Order: sequence, then structure tokens, then C-alpha cells
Amino acid sequence: MKAEIIAVGSELLLGQISNTNARFISSQLAELGIDVYYHTVVGDNPNRLLDSIKIAEERADLIIFSGGLGPTKDDLTKETIAKHLNKNLVLDDHAIMYIEDFFKRSGRMMTENNKKQALVLEGCTVLENKHGMAPGMLLSTENHAYMLLPGPPKELEPMFQFEAKPLLPKLLYKENVIMSHVIRFYGIGEAELETQVQDLLDNQTNPTLAPLASDGEVTLRLTAKADTEEEAWKSIEILQAEILNRVGKYVYGYNNESLASKLRDILIDNELTISAAESMTAGLFQSELAAVPGMGVALVGGVITYTEEVKINQLGVKKETIDEHSVVSSQVAEEMAIRVKEKFNTTIGVGITGAAGPDGHGDQPAGTVWIGIAYGDVAPISYKLNLSGMRNTNRLRTVKFAIHYLIRLLREEGLSKI
Amino acid sequence: MKAEIIAVGSELLLGQISNTNARFISSQLAELGIDVYYHTVVGDNPNRLLDSIKIAEERADLIIFSGGLGPTKDDLTKETIAKHLNKNLVLDDHAIMYIEDFFKRSGRMMTENNKKQALVLEGCTVLENKHGMAPGMLLSTENHAYMLLPGPPKELEPMFQFEAKPLLPKLLYKENVIMSHVIRFYGIGEAELETQVQDLLDNQTNPTLAPLASDGEVTLRLTAKADTEEEAWKSIEILQAEILNRVGKYVYGYNNESLASKLRDILIDNELTISAAESMTAGLFQSELAAVPGMGVALVGGVITYTEEVKINQLGVKKETIDEHSVVSSQVAEEMAIRVKEKFNTTIGVGITGAAGPDGHGDQPAGTVWIGIAYGDVAPISYKLNLSGMRNTNRLRTVKFAIHYLIRLLREEGLSKI
Repeated sequence: MKAEIIAVGSELLLGQISNTNARFISSQLAELGIDVYYHTVVGDNPNRLLDSIKIAEERADLIIFSGGLGPTKDDLTKETIAKHLNKNLVLDDHAIMYIEDFFKRSGRMMTENNKKQALVLEGCTVLENKHGMAPGMLLSTENHAYMLLPGPPKELEPMFQFEAKPLLPKLLYKENVIMSHVIRFYGIGEAELETQVQDLLDNQTNPTLAPLASDGEVTLRLTAKADTEEEAWKSIEILQAEILNRVGKYVYGYNNESLASKLRDILIDNELTISAAESMTAGLFQSELAAVPGMGVALVGGVITYTEEVKINQLGVKKETIDEHSVVSSQVAEEMAIRVKEKFNTTIGVGITGAAGPDGHGDQPAGTVWIGIAYGDVAPISYKLNLSGMRNTNRLRTVKFAIHYLIRLLREEGLSKI
Repeated sequence: MKAEIIAVGSELLLGQISNTNARFISSQLAELGIDVYYHTVVGDNPNRLLDSIKIAEERADLIIFSGGLGPTKDDLTKETIAKHLNKNLVLDDHAIMYIEDFFKRSGRMMTENNKKQALVLEGCTVLENKHGMAPGMLLSTENHAYMLLPGPPKELEPMFQFEAKPLLPKLLYKENVIMSHVIRFYGIGEAELETQVQDLLDNQTNPTLAPLASDGEVTLRLTAKADTEEEAWKSIEILQAEILNRVGKYVYGYNNESLASKLRDILIDNELTISAAESMTAGLFQSELAAVPGMGVALVGGVITYTEEVKINQLGVKKETIDEHSVVSSQVAEEMAIRVKEKFNTTIGVGITGAAGPDGHGDQPAGTVWIGIAYGDVAPISYKLNLSGMRNTNRLRTVKFAIHYLIRLLREEGLSKI
């Protein structure tokens, strides 16, 4: 089974937006074991779209379109496919009701051209659009399957995941269920992780095992095919147990969890509160925590101490500690953590000091960072990083490492399971 | 002149990365008035790449390739093109020196396969790679021009901008110079801006005028063709003066300036210092400032006051102010700004309080934000936002609005020109 993704939209060819839909769909198809051989982007032009369809039919079985399903005259994807396949466009009752309801709720007048969005290819399976008006479609012919999806990612992504993807295993395999499970790692490089599970990667059959690295994180995706969900999950569990056995200490969560959401859950479950004193990250640590809804229960606040003077006067770090050990040191990071914890009266205090770059600090090269953590009555701990990225990459990595070390520490204290 | 962009790399087809190169190149070509009709993505497979080249030759004059120029066996772009066009690959002296020097500097051993990167298509113009090892190429044949660029965006983008783009006007037009100039706006919507300059948009010839909106910012790009740089710049200046006359108050900068870099320049030029007290943004304002190199001279630090208690105990906001006006109010925002300015002894203090969402605060809906600014001896000022985005969009918009209002205030105080 080979697939091609055709994105339709002149805004892509003008460079106004990136084709993130192709990336999303490709990663989803990779999970299902479907090979994507080409992506094509074509403008809102029916002749050039038709040419692209003909080329795709020569080299793919499944052709997935994104964009061109809206109400304007420019939106021509389904019209072009209908003409090419000699199919009628018919009104979908469910879709027209939904569109009328949408306008009623928003108090706006529905114009005639909006009805066009409820037209679907005769004989297709309609894919409901829960985040917009234009429904998607899946149409099978003797030699090909055509899937039509709306252009906006916030409509396309849930539609693909919840409406379209479940239809594909039946279309492709005899098995009924494909189940995918992601294990998320931090603090271990992709190469090191692969070395640790090399034999599992070499001998994989079902479940399959796929590593992926991005933004300093590494994930392993386990994908199982089976007749039932229970069977699929069972085979995933066996493989997962073996992986945790080897590299469990780097695991911070699963599937859609992020470092920050995982930390939030541990903090809230254990009724912990947190504050931070930040120097090189200048608020990024706390901002990343606050980006997760619900963090307000645990996150109290903190201090941004961009200068030495502020560290001393506002936070109470001792001048002697800075003079003796330099401002980028384990001693200063730990003192920052202790002071902010006291000052803000929280169960956890975090102190971050370092040289983000491009310049180093004194004799410490750019990328040298100390993260201090003070937790309850446990003696404060600090961690050193030697980062090699650009300024803002280093700042973000530092924040992720700080969250990772916190999660690991709280787990070692018995406050969370892997 | 029609162009097609072919991105080569299996990682794109697996959905591991987005094809941001095609977006970047497309936006650059749009500036030059070159139409892009198709993007294609193909994997590291010489037969499928060759098929793509043949298809592109049927429908484009200029074919731009990204990726596949590296040292590994998978990198086959230039080899495939050389074979197809019956050209030899020859060693580029400059490139091989550069590669050898790169390994010398990094103290690593150069392996034989790295030499492969210095091979270029016979008869091409070599495009120097200042951020990596593989040089780019521009080769003209009777009917087509082929441009080969490296895959990593940090190599491709500067190479295109500084090495390749200047060669294109000669290839395309009789004019010698194409000059592009961007005016950057904040605090005005795209539709409103377009209305204000509608007649200029309708009657554009040379310079052309193109609006673009992204992340809450709007830009206008002025592009002039002429025989000399002086002439091109002169015609841009005339059009720019007319635009500033109408919507100058929303302009924050030009070309590659960002809101934060513009603010940094004004702060440093006027020897001002800044501190902030942040509630809903939880450090994001200061972190965005610190993301710009050199900000350390002006940014002193601040307080993150995520709870009412911290606003009162750590910052000194009066409990009565909160009780009387609620925590999301102009009074609290201004008091936060005044207190943090005093506490951190800076010339400017910023206070941010609001409801990021999804929940509102009391009877104030999600998206209600107050930004307070205290500057020198001027009476504190506050600004209200009613944002309608998701939680983290609202947080980022708030930070951008805060920087925008600061720039506008300092300009009104005579500390910066438009």
C-alpha cells in the first residue's frame, strides 16, 4: 500500500504557511505501516490539480488531499475529483444541518455559498468535521482510495485521527486493530537509547518499534496489529516491560504527556507547591509550567534574577557565595533554590543559573548551567549541564532538564510510578 | 518564469519534520515575482527522484532542490542530476579546503566520505555554504535552471538569501536590482490595515506591495525593480512615506527587527532599565526579552506572582486594591508595575495580570488582560486587552502587546523615531 499526499492551496506556494498537514498525515500513516512516497503541493487551480491527481494515480494506491473544501470559488478539490471520476456531488443531510446550526449559534447570516460545503462525493463515507463546517470524505474505487480532508490543521488533525484513521486498517489489512503506544524519554540521546534496545529494534516484527528524536526528547513508538484491542495491548505490555527494565530511569511519561503536564500531575497528586528563581532562563521555566492548564494549583510564583545585585538584594543569595564560587556554580544554584522556597513558602524551590550564550561567563564556556532543587527537608541537590546549542536552544533545554530532574527526584522519593 | 521546489529526504515522508524549506524558498521567490506552481517531496531514492525531475522539467523553468547533498550514501541529489544531465562531478577546490579546515578546527578526524561533499556539477556556479560543509549549485541549461541547496534550514536559508537570490534577477529580468523592504506592524489587524492602504494595493505596479499576517503581527513588503539600488530605494521610500502617513502609529520596526529586538535597541540607546511583575504570563514577558542577545544590559529581573498572596507579600500590592477592584484590573496592573519598578530600582516597571483561559476570573471572561506600565516620573498607564484565543496564544499575544505598548510609549516620549 503506497500513499501520496496532495495539499491544495495557493497560500502554500506563496510561502505564507508551511505544509504541516503533510507532516501530520505522514507521521500518522507511518504508525499504520503505510509508505508515503511523495508529497505534492498544488495551487487553487483545477487544471493543475487534475494533472497532479493523474500523476498520483500512477504511483500511489491511497491519495490523501488536504484543503480546497471551503465555501469560496477557489475551493475546488471535490469538484475536480468528482469531474475526474465521473461522480455526482450530493447534499449530505447531516452536514447541512450542522452548517445551519453553526450559523444559528454564532448569530451570523448563512450565505448561499456555505451550502456548497455540505456537498459530498456520491458513494463516499462522510468524515464528520467536529471543528469546522466542511466534512471530509473517503471514496474507494477499483484501484484507488481517495481521502479528502479540510485544510485548517485544527479541523484536519482530529478528523484524521478520530474519523479517518480507524477506517484504514480494514481497508489495508485483514487485522481489525492497530494499536500504537508511545514511551517518552528525556536525558538520554537517541543514539544511546538505540544502543540500549538495539536487539529489540533488529528483531522487531509485531509490535514494531520506532524511535524518534525531536527538541531534545526521544520517543519509542510501539505499534501492534491484532484481532482485538486486548491482544494488541498485551503484546505492547510485554515489549514495554522489557524496555522499562533497561532504560526506565529516562522515561518521563507516555503518549500525549509532556514533561510539564507530567510534573503538574505529580505535584497536584501529592499536594506539592513550587517556586523558582531564574537567571539565564529569565522566566521560561515558570512560563513553560504555566502553559499547562491547571498548573495554578501548584505554581506559586518566583523571582527572575537577571543580575548579581538582584540575586543578593531580592533573593538573599550571599555575596560571599557568588564571590567565592562564581555566579554560575552549584552553590549559587542551590542557594537560589533554598531562598526562593523559603521566600515563597513552597514545598519545592528551583534555582537556575548559567551562561546561555553566545558568551560564556568568566572561565565557564557558553552552555554551562547549574540547576538547583530544594525539596522539603531533603538536602538540596544540583545538576550541571554542558550544552552546545544556540542561546535559545540552550535556554529551552535547560528548562526541560530542570523538569526532567524534578520528575526523577520526586519519583525516587516515591511520589510517582514510572 | 515558473518554478518548482523539490525537497529530497525520507524524513519528510515519515512525518519527522515539516518542509519549512519549501515555505522559505517560496516566500523568497514571491518577493522576486517568480511563480511557484508545485512543491514536491520525494524520498532518498534515485529512481523516484529522477521521475520527479522529469515531471518538473515538463512544468517548470527553474527547479530548486533542497537536501541530499550530505556525505552519506543516502545523499544522492547531485549524483542523480549529474547522471540525468550527463554532467561530470568535479572537485571544488574552495569547498574541499573549507571541509578540511572544518575538521581541523573541530579536532575531529575527516573520513573519506566527507570529500564527496566537495564534488559539484561541472559548469555550475558554486554557492558557498557558510554554515555547513556541502556547497550549493546553480546550473543553467538551454531550457532550465537547476538550483541545489543543502537540507538543513540553517544552511539553506542564508545560502539562498545571500548567495543564490542575488543571481536570480539577472537570470530572470533585464533589470539589475530587485530590492525588498518590510514594514512591521503590531496592534492592527490585517483587514484593517488593508482597508487603510486599499488604494495603494489596488494601484500597485512598481514597487509592489504585499501584506502578510502571522502570529498577530502584520507586515507590508515593498518590492522595487530598478537598474540601480539608489533608484529602487528611492521608489520604496516614496511609497513608505505614504504608508507611514496613514498607519505609522502601528509600525514598530523594519525588515528583520522583532518587537523584542526593537525594544532592546530603544532601551540600550537611552540607557533605560526594565523589570516586570507577571501573573498570567508567568515569566514569558521577561523570557521573550531575554531571548534577544544583549538584553542583559537593560533587563534586571522581576517577580512572578501567580497567586494573590504572592502579589501582596512579595510585591507589596495592597490587599484593598485587589479586594476593591479584583485582581484582574487596571489598578492592580498599575500597582504591580509601580512596585516592581521601585523594588528592582529600574526606570521602567511592567505589570501583567489577566485570565489566560480556559476559565475566566470572577465575572471577567477568559482573555481579559491588563498591562500596566510605570516609566520614570510619568503617571502609570494601563491597557486592557480582550483576547479570544486559546490559553497559550493569549499569553503570547499579551507579551507582544506589552512590548508594543512599551515601544509606542517610549516613542511618544521622544526616545525613538518610527
